[in-house]
Amino acid sequence: MDTFMQTALEEARKSLAEGGIPIGAAIVHRGRIIGRGHNRRVQQGSAILHAEMDALENAGRQPASVYRESVLYTTLSPCAMCSGAILLYGIGRVVIGEHRTFQGEEELLRARGVAVEVLQDRDCIQLMRAFITARPQLWNEDIGRA
Amino acid sequence: MDTFMQTALEEARKSLAEGGIPIGAAIVHRGRIIGRGHNRRVQQGSAILHAEMDALENAGRQPASVYRESVLYTTLSPCAMCSGAILLYGIGRVVIGEHRTFQGEEELLRARGVAVEVLQDRDCIQLMRAFITARPQLWNEDIGRA
Repeated sequence: MDTFMQTALEEARKSLAEGGIPIGAAIVHRGRIIGRGHNRRVQQGSAILHAEMDALENAGRQPASVYRESVLYTTLSPCAMCSGAILLYGIGRVVIGEHRTFQGEEELLRARGVAVEVLQDRDCIQLMRAFITARPQLWNEDIGRA
Repeated sequence: MDTFMQTALEEARKSLAEGGIPIGAAIVHRGRIIGRGHNRRVQQGSAILHAEMDALENAGRQPASVYRESVLYTTLSPCAMCSGAILLYGIGRVVIGEHRTFQGEEELLRARGVAVEVLQDRDCIQLMRAFITARPQLWNEDIGRA
């Protein structure tokens, strides 16, 4: 597996071990991770800290030039909120672990010029499938459906 | 002025008094404020706590039914990230103080069925105009342009 997707997957597993939702992300600038994170709905009672948002927050305040040259790795297709954050900061490329269990705003991202790649990674799919089966209510809350 | 927009404007002024970016928001459910907040880029070094996001976070984890019946008041037209959060949670109505100084993703919100109202409030416009003139670099950072 891609080494940066591996980092995102480690974050997802860390979240699961904490009792949280197993989605992870990493932001990479010129081959270096500048931010990584995972969903913190359960851990911090957060409505906005999806994995991608947590990684962005952990990267701190960056100039526009850094965001534009960055690649966002996420284990799961980004929802409307996280896709909006990608658009706000002009992140040029997004690598997605899988979109079998949930498909976010990939079409919107592509329509706005973002390069979107979906790996359909078996480990990412398996992790989310098991979680959704085990905790459907929590998962639906995270995507605004429950 | 609408009493809830007044709350959002109070939040914006609080942020300015803290040395921050003067944008405020409030989320109202059935006539009751369930979350209010302001931009925290300067105060917390945050890349994701725009006013609308801060209000959502302060409202805490809510069921989908509450978001759907809620109205988001914000002093300024919501950017792509905040608009994405509105779409994620299915907030049905957004009242915007003004979009003269910055126009966010109102078209996208409308296209997805959100009721969007723009007040073009003089106090909201004046507050942002003065801030953008005084701190153009900080403002451009907040919208991913610098």
